[in-house]
Amino acid sequence: MPKISRKADQMPASPIRKLVPYAETAKKAGVKIYHLNIGQPDIETPTLLMDAIRNSDIKVLEYSHSAGIESYRKKLATYYQGFRINIDASDIIITTGGSEAISISMMTCFNPGDEIIIPEPFYANYNGFCCAADVTIKPVRSYIESGFALPPIAEFEKLIGPKTKGIMICNPGNPTGYLYSREELELLKELVKKHDLYLLSDEVYREFCYDGKEYVSVMHLEGIDNNVILLDSISKRYSACGARIGAMISKNKELMRAALKFAQARLSPPTFGQIGGEAALNTPASYFEKVKKEYVLRRDFVVDSLNKMDGVFCPKPSGAFYCIARLPIDNADTFCQWLLEKFSLNNKTLMLAPATGFYSSPGAGLNEVRIAYVLNLEDLSQAMICLKEALSVYPGKIVNAELETNNRRK
Amino acid sequence: MPKISRKADQMPASPIRKLVPYAETAKKAGVKIYHLNIGQPDIETPTLLMDAIRNSDIKVLEYSHSAGIESYRKKLATYYQGFRINIDASDIIITTGGSEAISISMMTCFNPGDEIIIPEPFYANYNGFCCAADVTIKPVRSYIESGFALPPIAEFEKLIGPKTKGIMICNPGNPTGYLYSREELELLKELVKKHDLYLLSDEVYREFCYDGKEYVSVMHLEGIDNNVILLDSISKRYSACGARIGAMISKNKELMRAALKFAQARLSPPTFGQIGGEAALNTPASYFEKVKKEYVLRRDFVVDSLNKMDGVFCPKPSGAFYCIARLPIDNADTFCQWLLEKFSLNNKTLMLAPATGFYSSPGAGLNEVRIAYVLNLEDLSQAMICLKEALSVYPGKIVNAELETNNRRK
Repeated sequence: MPKISRKADQMPASPIRKLVPYAETAKKAGVKIYHLNIGQPDIETPTLLMDAIRNSDIKVLEYSHSAGIESYRKKLATYYQGFRINIDASDIIITTGGSEAISISMMTCFNPGDEIIIPEPFYANYNGFCCAADVTIKPVRSYIESGFALPPIAEFEKLIGPKTKGIMICNPGNPTGYLYSREELELLKELVKKHDLYLLSDEVYREFCYDGKEYVSVMHLEGIDNNVILLDSISKRYSACGARIGAMISKNKELMRAALKFAQARLSPPTFGQIGGEAALNTPASYFEKVKKEYVLRRDFVVDSLNKMDGVFCPKPSGAFYCIARLPIDNADTFCQWLLEKFSLNNKTLMLAPATGFYSSPGAGLNEVRIAYVLNLEDLSQAMICLKEALSVYPGKIVNAELETNNRRK
Repeated sequence: MPKISRKADQMPASPIRKLVPYAETAKKAGVKIYHLNIGQPDIETPTLLMDAIRNSDIKVLEYSHSAGIESYRKKLATYYQGFRINIDASDIIITTGGSEAISISMMTCFNPGDEIIIPEPFYANYNGFCCAADVTIKPVRSYIESGFALPPIAEFEKLIGPKTKGIMICNPGNPTGYLYSREELELLKELVKKHDLYLLSDEVYREFCYDGKEYVSVMHLEGIDNNVILLDSISKRYSACGARIGAMISKNKELMRAALKFAQARLSPPTFGQIGGEAALNTPASYFEKVKKEYVLRRDFVVDSLNKMDGVFCPKPSGAFYCIARLPIDNADTFCQWLLEKFSLNNKTLMLAPATGFYSSPGAGLNEVRIAYVLNLEDLSQAMICLKEALSVYPGKIVNAELETNNRRK
C-alpha cells in the first residue's frame, strides 16, 4: 500500500469536529445538545438571496469566469466602497468560500518553509491551510486578561527572521470576538512596511461590530496597497455558509494576476452561490440592524451569565459572534468531551469548542473554551444553566485558590 | 513590494484562456466565433437538476458535511454500483468540482518533489494542480498515429525512479477522446502493483463512450484497491459545469481519512450543487442515449470533415467530446491566434485549442489542435467550412511533401 504524504499525516484534524462522534452518541441516547461549538448561525438567510437562486432561469449551467461573474464583482466593489474600501472589480477574485481565498493567497504569496506570524488564539483552520501550503505558523500570543488585544509590536519583532514573509489577522476576530482599533492596525502597518511583509486580513465578520465601535479594514491603511490582501466570505454576513462564496481582494496587480492562474486551474466558483451573493448585495440595512441587535442581546446575556459563575472569566467582545471564557477546569478538551459523554441536566447538555485548538503554542488555552452565541436567547439560557451545573459537578474542577495560582503561573 | 511565490511564478497560465483577449477583440469587431476551444457543452442541463434547486426550501443555508450530504453520497454509491463499481458512501468525498478532487488527491498522496507519470497529451490543468502541490510531471508520450493509445508499458518503466509515486490517466480521455481497453488497463494494473504506485483516474466522461465500446474503470481492476483513486465530476455528465460538484473516491480507508482532513479545512462543498447533483441521479437513461446519439453525429461529422481536408489527419475517438487533429501548419499557437486576429470568412471564424498546451514535452503537438465538438451540427458545419478556407490561406501552411518529411522526422 503506498504511503500517504507527510502533509496528509501532519494535517491537523479539525479540533471542533473531533468531538462530533461523542455528540452523535449522546444524541442517539436521547440527550438534547446545545451547539455553542460552531459558527453556524441560526439566523435565516435573506429571502432575496434564496429567491434569486430559486428564480434563476438557466438552460445550460456553464462555467463562470474564473475570477467570478463580472456583474457580481462590479456590484461587490460598490459594496466595499460603502465601507470606504476603494477597489474596483479587477481587484477581486471570487472564491469558493473564504477558505479558498486563504488557500489561493497562501500559494500565491508563500514558498514552502516560509513563516507567517499569526496572533493566537486564531481560527483553527488556518493550521490546515498553512500545512497544505507548507507554511510555518509563528504564533504571537494574545491574552484573555486584555480581552485578546493586539500583542505588543515588540513580540512580533522578536519572531521576524529571514523566512518571515507575512502576518495574518482576523478582524473582528474568530475565536476571540476582538475588534482591532485603528491605533493597533497602524502599528501593524508600520511593521509590515518596515519588513515588507504581506498582511492578510480575514474580515468576514465586518457587519458584526458592536457598541458603536468602528470597523477598520487593512484596506484603509495608507501606503501598503501592495502588501495587503483582504480575505472575505458571504457565509457569516448573510448566514449563507452553504453557498461557498468568498473573495480574495488586493490592489497588488502582480499578485492578483498570479492568483488568477490558481483560480483558472480550478475553473470557476459555484454559479448558484454567486447568483445568491449578487442578489444579497441588495439586503437592506434594516436586516443587519436587526441581526446585530439580536447578537448584542445574546452576547450580553452569555457574557454576563458566564462572569456570574464561580471562577469563570469572560471578556466582553466587540465583534463577531464568539467569546472565549476561562473556566475553573483542569483541561478544556477533557471537559468538553465529558459534557457530551458523562453529563446531562434534565436530559440536556451543551457542546463547546476547547480553546486549545485555537492556540498554536503547546499548553496554551487549557482552561479556555470558545462559545459561539449562535442560538436564540431561550436556548442560550438553557445552555448556561447546564454549564453552571456542569462546572459544579465536573470531577476535574479547580477551586478558586488553585485557579488563581494556576493563572499566576502562566 | 513583497515577492510572489516561486509556485505562483511558475504556475502555467491556462493555454486555452490565453487566446481569450484575441477572441474578445474579434467579437467587438463584429466577427462571429465558433467556440470549439473549450469543453463547455451546449446540451441543456437536465430540468430535474435545475428544478431541485429551484424548489429547494431552505431557511438557513448551512454548511453541509465536509464529505458531502450523506443522502447524496448514498445515492451516488448506487449510481457507481450501476457501473459495477462496488463502493459505499464512506468511500466518497464530495468535492468542489473534479478540480478539487484532483487537488485534494495530490496533497494527500504526494510529497513536494515526488513524480507522477501522465500519458501526454493530457488535460492542461493537471499542470496547475501538480505545480500547486510541488509534484513533478513525467510525461509518457502517446501519438496521434495510434489514436493516442496507451504507450508501451516499457516507456512507463523507463521513467520510474525513486521519486515516482503515481500514475494519472484520463479515461475516456480529454483532450484525446481515447478510451482505454481492458487489456491496456490490466497492463497498467500490473505496473502499479509491481511498484506500489498510486493510480489516479479521471473518469468524468464515463457516460460518453461510443460505438458500443466498453467503459472500464480503474475501480474494476482487482487487487489494487489501496492504490486506486477515482476522480469524478458532474460537470460534463449533466452539462452542469457551474454546479462545481465532483467526487474523490477510493477504497483505501487510511487515504480517505487523511483526505477528509483537507476537506474539513475547507468546510464543505457547495450546497446547491449537491442538491442538484442528488436530483440528477434520477436522470433517465433516455437522456444520456439522446445526448450520446447527438455527440456521435457531431463526432462523425467533424472527424470526416477534417480527414477530407488536404493534409489533415484526425483519428476517430471512442469517447468524451474531443478530438485532436494534425493540421498542415507550422505552429498551432500561431495558427489559433491568427484565426482570431487575421482571419474571417463571411465575418465568421473559429476558436481552437492549440495542442501544445496539452503536451509537457517541449515542441510536441506543434501542428495539432484540440477540437471540442460541443456545438450543434449546423454550427459545426459552418466552423468546418471556415477551417478549410483558413487552412488554404494561412501564411504558415505547410504543403504535403514538407508535412510528410516533418512527421517522419518526429
